[in-house]
Amino acid sequence: MTWTLARRAERLEPSAIREILKLAERPGVISLAGGLPAAEGFPVEAVRDATARVLAETPREALQYAASEGFGPLREWVAGHLRAQGLGVEAGQVLITTGSQQGLDLVGKVLLDAGSTVAVETPTYLGALQAFAPCEPRWLALDDDGAGPRPQAMAAARGARFAYLLPTFQNPSGRCLDAARRHALADAALDAGVAIVEDDPYGALWFDDPPPPPLAARAGDGAVYLGSFSKVLAPGLRVGWLVAPKRLFPKLLQAKQAADLHTPGFNQRIVHALVAGGLLDTHLPALRRRYRERRDAMHAALARHLPSGCRWTPPRGGMFFWVELPAGLDAASLLPRAVDAGVAFVPGAPFFCETPQPNTMRLSFATVAPDRLEQGVATLAAIVRDAVATTADTPRGVAPPPQMPALG
Amino acid sequence: MTWTLARRAERLEPSAIREILKLAERPGVISLAGGLPAAEGFPVEAVRDATARVLAETPREALQYAASEGFGPLREWVAGHLRAQGLGVEAGQVLITTGSQQGLDLVGKVLLDAGSTVAVETPTYLGALQAFAPCEPRWLALDDDGAGPRPQAMAAARGARFAYLLPTFQNPSGRCLDAARRHALADAALDAGVAIVEDDPYGALWFDDPPPPPLAARAGDGAVYLGSFSKVLAPGLRVGWLVAPKRLFPKLLQAKQAADLHTPGFNQRIVHALVAGGLLDTHLPALRRRYRERRDAMHAALARHLPSGCRWTPPRGGMFFWVELPAGLDAASLLPRAVDAGVAFVPGAPFFCETPQPNTMRLSFATVAPDRLEQGVATLAAIVRDAVATTADTPRGVAPPPQMPALG
Repeated sequence: MTWTLARRAERLEPSAIREILKLAERPGVISLAGGLPAAEGFPVEAVRDATARVLAETPREALQYAASEGFGPLREWVAGHLRAQGLGVEAGQVLITTGSQQGLDLVGKVLLDAGSTVAVETPTYLGALQAFAPCEPRWLALDDDGAGPRPQAMAAARGARFAYLLPTFQNPSGRCLDAARRHALADAALDAGVAIVEDDPYGALWFDDPPPPPLAARAGDGAVYLGSFSKVLAPGLRVGWLVAPKRLFPKLLQAKQAADLHTPGFNQRIVHALVAGGLLDTHLPALRRRYRERRDAMHAALARHLPSGCRWTPPRGGMFFWVELPAGLDAASLLPRAVDAGVAFVPGAPFFCETPQPNTMRLSFATVAPDRLEQGVATLAAIVRDAVATTADTPRGVAPPPQMPALG
Repeated sequence: MTWTLARRAERLEPSAIREILKLAERPGVISLAGGLPAAEGFPVEAVRDATARVLAETPREALQYAASEGFGPLREWVAGHLRAQGLGVEAGQVLITTGSQQGLDLVGKVLLDAGSTVAVETPTYLGALQAFAPCEPRWLALDDDGAGPRPQAMAAARGARFAYLLPTFQNPSGRCLDAARRHALADAALDAGVAIVEDDPYGALWFDDPPPPPLAARAGDGAVYLGSFSKVLAPGLRVGWLVAPKRLFPKLLQAKQAADLHTPGFNQRIVHALVAGGLLDTHLPALRRRYRERRDAMHAALARHLPSGCRWTPPRGGMFFWVELPAGLDAASLLPRAVDAGVAFVPGAPFFCETPQPNTMRLSFATVAPDRLEQGVATLAAIVRDAVATTADTPRGVAPPPQMPALG
């Protein structure tokens, strides 16, 4: 039998991250590659209690088909939580999704035709590129000055169906835009008529001080805003949400119905029991302490071991360091050696929609204890130093790869 | 802000079933409209035990991100279960999905371009039409002789990306194709080079004798086969699966990654604990007895109350009766009166991709106890009799709506 594939299926590429994660599952490898949260930080006891309560009080409701919009009390909780952050959100605008990855899939389905333009940061979240890719959009890289996309870039993006932005502890770069840039970007987007799709899975994971309010707080009906319980509770429950302008909501809801009918009601009720019971009041501070300690350990290890010419900015939240190696190095080509030596990371190139910077890498500190972080970074640094030395030995006639714009 | 919608989003229509379900949620309404399984049949105690075991033995694994393919032991179980039914399936061909609705979404994404042809039965599952619609396919109704799509119709469907078929206790018609028709259809599809997408959520819910082997058992690599735990365990867990030929599997897997990363690992482990523990050996016979009793009650009530000129065949499994009213009646126009009188059903028209038969309705017996079925059918029958009388009074000059092919 000859199966004829859809054109979009020809574009579906194996996830580089997933393939590397498999590589890094070898015993003994210290993985700085994952996008996983720390499993030892999962609130297991609280999940046990919440699950037992759901199965004692509303077992048949939890196990039955449910509304595509999501579990009402959870939608109310999300809306209230966002109103406390300055967003004018009603529960009727909250759509519960099967992880916020599904939110991206639905946004693409509802807003993108083949050939539509999506404006993105460089680098940006690989999973979003993958979620939008089946709609066959055209990517437009927003001009960036290091502090974020330039507000002027929004005018250049006029006509794009939306700008996909992660202003808060971005995956992969860890970057957090300041309040002034957020205001300027939101205003420029509104001026240019460019809708914003704001992805914010890491906002609650701040280590030093809370991030500024989301772009959506200023952009209002000009923004779809996505969030998740994956990083603050547990990703294995697959419960996320999006907030949509009233005009868009019915279309996203219909796309959701067609995609999986609804997110498991069982899981939504467990999440609601957890958050409504006030778990986050104690759980989040503990989580922030744990991650802050690891962030500090990784920062110290990078400073101690990486050779000069490497650049990074310690993130003020989230899970990732973004490291720029000296120009001429290709992080991907170092990966097999690194894994052989017992440490894994994610090369930066796949996070670029165009003109990748091969001398970048994403390092996660989330799942690794401080002493292992020190060991992993030391191992990685040795490989980088070796590569720098080899590159320095290369005759001048062999030019480094082109296209190496300075990292902001 | 003006949001520009994708062309496909303009095609997304509110789900008629969902809207009617809302209507039927009014207290006091006997709903024959739902597609829900009987909640009193959920194995609540077993779910409690399985959940407790998962959270005791592998809590952090269950709550962490997991492989997009699905939980290995569950994939193995599904493959073994299918091999026992005569399908040559390896675990590596099993993709766990967030309900089998997601399987349909993924199949569409991987196989359908705008304008691609999908061959379907008439009527067919509304949720599949909705899942495929965002890909903007062209529908081709397979010619049908009442015993199923005619094998010759496969030649007429040559060039279609696939034929979407529900040979076993179809939603909405309840029809089950016999073994000879299955063989002939599978062979004709292979001859014509038409791939088969076989949807089988109800196969285990037989009341009289087991259905013949799936089409996929004969079509082999010419078929994708979809199943679900929603009807045999509980839909609120949202765990389904599909089996794909090896050539297609990687593309479906990539589409799955992009859609929601993975189906909740927590839920997959609960389902695995349930089925691997042998629950279905006792649970399925009890479920079949419950549904058989209701099927019998609805059949008796229909025979007792419906006026002459109404036609139906009692289903040998699944959850639905498909009733053809006398020509000239429009089931949709009876619905508001029925709901006012305290009974809800689903009009048949939305289940047709073209040329709907307005004089059809789908009645579910799954969630209603026998005495209430009797009462609901009696109420519905009174409205039908009234409509028949009114139609008979209509002067001959007012013709009934056109396009009333005989129901097979």
